[in-house]
Amino acid sequence: MKTHGDNFFEDFQLGRKIAHASPRTLTEGDAALYGALTGSRFILQASAPFARRLGYHTRPLDDFLVFNTVFGQSVADISLNAVANLGYAEGRFVKPVHAGETLSAISEIIGLRETSRGDSGVVYVRTDGLNERGEQVLTYIRWVLVKKRDAKSPAPVAHVPELVGTVSADDLALPHHVDFGVFFDTAQSGSPLLWDDYAIGDRIDHNDGVAVEEAEHMTATRLYRNTARVHFDPQAGGFGKRLVYGGHILSLARALSFNGLANAVQILAINNGRHVAPVFAGDMLFAWSEVLDKKPLRKDCGALRLRLITAKNRACGNFPDKDVHGKYPDNIVLDFDYWALMPRG
Amino acid sequence: MKTHGDNFFEDFQLGRKIAHASPRTLTEGDAALYGALTGSRFILQASAPFARRLGYHTRPLDDFLVFNTVFGQSVADISLNAVANLGYAEGRFVKPVHAGETLSAISEIIGLRETSRGDSGVVYVRTDGLNERGEQVLTYIRWVLVKKRDAKSPAPVAHVPELVGTVSADDLALPHHVDFGVFFDTAQSGSPLLWDDYAIGDRIDHNDGVAVEEAEHMTATRLYRNTARVHFDPQAGGFGKRLVYGGHILSLARALSFNGLANAVQILAINNGRHVAPVFAGDMLFAWSEVLDKKPLRKDCGALRLRLITAKNRACGNFPDKDVHGKYPDNIVLDFDYWALMPRG
Amino acid sequence: MKTHGDNFFEDFQLGRKIAHASPRTLTEGDAALYGALTGSRFILQASAPFARRLGYHTRPLDDFLVFNTVFGQSVADISLNAVANLGYAEGRFVKPVHAGETLSAISEIIGLRETSRGDSGVVYVRTDGLNERGEQVLTYIRWVLVKKRDAKSPAPVAHVPELVGTVSADDLALPHHVDFGVFFDTAQSGSPLLWDDYAIGDRIDHNDGVAVEEAEHMTATRLYRNTARVHFDPQAGGFGKRLVYGGHILSLARALSFNGLANAVQILAINNGRHVAPVFAGDMLFAWSEVLDKKPLRKDCGALRLRLITAKNRACGNFPDKDVHGKYPDNIVLDFDYWALMPRG
Repeated sequence: MKTHGDNFFEDFQLGRKIAHASPRTLTEGDAALYGALTGSRFILQASAPFARRLGYHTRPLDDFLVFNTVFGQSVADISLNAVANLGYAEGRFVKPVHAGETLSAISEIIGLRETSRGDSGVVYVRTDGLNERGEQVLTYIRWVLVKKRDAKSPAPVAHVPELVGTVSADDLALPHHVDFGVFFDTAQSGSPLLWDDYAIGDRIDHNDGVAVEEAEHMTATRLYRNTARVHFDPQAGGFGKRLVYGGHILSLARALSFNGLANAVQILAINNGRHVAPVFAGDMLFAWSEVLDKKPLRKDCGALRLRLITAKNRACGNFPDKDVHGKYPDNIVLDFDYWALMPRG
Repeated sequence: MKTHGDNFFEDFQLGRKIAHASPRTLTEGDAALYGALTGSRFILQASAPFARRLGYHTRPLDDFLVFNTVFGQSVADISLNAVANLGYAEGRFVKPVHAGETLSAISEIIGLRETSRGDSGVVYVRTDGLNERGEQVLTYIRWVLVKKRDAKSPAPVAHVPELVGTVSADDLALPHHVDFGVFFDTAQSGSPLLWDDYAIGDRIDHNDGVAVEEAEHMTATRLYRNTARVHFDPQAGGFGKRLVYGGHILSLARALSFNGLANAVQILAINNGRHVAPVFAGDMLFAWSEVLDKKPLRKDCGALRLRLITAKNRACGNFPDKDVHGKYPDNIVLDFDYWALMPRG
Repeated sequence: MKTHGDNFFEDFQLGRKIAHASPRTLTEGDAALYGALTGSRFILQASAPFARRLGYHTRPLDDFLVFNTVFGQSVADISLNAVANLGYAEGRFVKPVHAGETLSAISEIIGLRETSRGDSGVVYVRTDGLNERGEQVLTYIRWVLVKKRDAKSPAPVAHVPELVGTVSADDLALPHHVDFGVFFDTAQSGSPLLWDDYAIGDRIDHNDGVAVEEAEHMTATRLYRNTARVHFDPQAGGFGKRLVYGGHILSLARALSFNGLANAVQILAINNGRHVAPVFAGDMLFAWSEVLDKKPLRKDCGALRLRLITAKNRACGNFPDKDVHGKYPDNIVLDFDYWALMPRG
């Protein structure tokens, strides 16, 4: 049997570490494609001279291009047989990544729990992205529902890792040698609003909408080298149609958030996130954000803790949200809690 | 209200200047994507050694990639609420742009005229594209029909700028340090026909056809960072389906014109242009050209004034055109008058 | 008549040589797009540091990106009016190609044979791809069924070239200055299986599947600058829908073969190949391989002769194949026999 075997729930052992294939050099070509698939307009990733004037080596790659590239490398080992990607936590973007750098990914199984039905289980995994010097650029936890090969195989001892709901502001990695105070042209960046202009409780309708068609989400998914069959084969999932890869929805929602959060130039951490409902080709996505918290980080910048709520086929002017029982309206597809870096005035 | 507000007709004042977000570094990645979305085969943009042998720094980016990138930056401020992009005039490509350069865009409102129905108005705007050294690389006028926020708001004093119908050949910007006479291999360029071989009145059927599907035109529109909702949301325009962005039709028509005008290596000026009818996903585009004028520019090159007529879902072997009353056949979608640079024999 | 005339069967003469337009500089942008359209994960093309550690200048471009780029340049002259691309033979990948290099293509007509119906003929052509220094990087023969302009025009003297069914292992071009023995990290490359682990007769189900939609195959076809109308115009072929370009199916099948042949890092030769049935948008592709032969080449690497069989809309776990009469099951679309380079343990 020379084919890379699919891993089923039984194949994961607590503490197992996996170095994933294939490390991959990201280029200006990948960045261009990411831009054209998402429409992202954040100035730091858009303009090399702007980034350099702030002190960056050059413009960094979009954070979710990095995230999805690392995630994509882990799929063949972790989630080829995933039924659903359940959630994210404790993510930190540790170092900016630039075109020309090569990313590899390693994962550790940090939790296992069979479902009550006994035909599948939840796998908790921490994945690290590394650059070619072996430096960590990204780390995050995700948990995923994976089928069992045989429903009758015995359940492993359940181990659910204790997850911190929010990354501490003290753990956020700030870009060194960068000074947002010297030069930050808000006419170029697209909004006069800086960190001091946002208040906890602010709700922001991102107004714009974006559609996703079959060729677009499949091209994005292959850009990330994510080979999970549910994204390509209409018969592979339970929907009779292809499921849009959740990480690409993150990318699209982030791009939409430019309108209202144009100066949120970098993602610093993923506190937690959930894909609430599936997205399919033809859906229009809209998004709104809520400011959950804010922390000054340095004189020149601060962190905003933001919730990015994404809906399909309905505008977000009235801020659709879960009800008091925690139940989401049908058309909410993503609830994502993260820390963003924003310059101060 | 933290969201970037849509501008309606009432929001434009004559003489107002707008610096657009986000300046953007164009790369070999953007060029590759442009090539794959349009199929453009012009030698000067295709082959770096060819361009360098002529005296170019390296191959320049496609002129309509530059045009659409500058145009795209202006959309969020000018035409997010556009009903239709009515026309272009007085466009000049001033300097070649190469991969690695960063383009920004500024616009000035140069005319306003409320429509007779009173629910919208025409905005005339001159937009300049600048490189990172602040040098003008492109300038053009367009006019666009924009909705009023409130049909009852008073009409501004009408001011319609006087538009020159044709850019004077004396105003065309030629590439310095370039000599087409030393080396111009017509086997490589795809046609033996040079400037001297074309005569005023020549009509050229470009023969090839190209289709455009949803994912393609939306990817192109995002490549240009054009966020106008009519191109993404089937409900946003009056058609019940997505409108293909006009600038991408320009790009596709230009690429089709290779077959018959392979040596028209650069666009020098836009005399005037009109999108005559909308294009939707699934349409096949065909094009033909008419030589309107020709001017020798230097010993090694001349300018051809060309009309590029583009049709959907019908071939152009019989040169479909407007009738004596100026009425176009239903399937004509673009009538575009421009100056192109062509080497001499 | 200024348009590039379509060549019909009558227009080809035995021995005629054609230098094709337009030579084209391939970039990291083209490589990124190729990756996103195919999902290819072979380590040598994915990771620049990995390639450099082996002794390569940097990571080479995917072999079928090179093949399809050269093929695409030949289409306007050879196969714009092709009814079908019948087969390949005697292909050799002579030199690796890297981003930044410029490829041109020349062809020679090496055979002609009118079909028995008399309305078309088979054209045999050898095409060479050259880099900007004029060095051959690729050579292959293909034969293609081309319509006659006039069914009544006289048949040329039939000349069918004698084709070698298999490229001799002695003629395979190995990468100089490369040593697979010093460093070849099979955790990174995606499989522990090296040349010595494969035996003649091995059959490998590649397990994964990939879909192809309209926008994807048309974007790929334009990436290759292949302008044959059957790939764009649903009315141009005999199918009432667009035919997916065969070279892109090669690319997709090669990418699928990663799962099971991850260490087959380079294609060395094309022995022979046939597109057995057409592929259309919406089809899911699956593939399996058979090891036909194996030859040690050096201490550090060997060649595997592989048959890559590709099916649409059916998985390949039971290795669907032609029957004893040479007849293929309906859903087989490609039967491709090639030599691949694989490191030794």
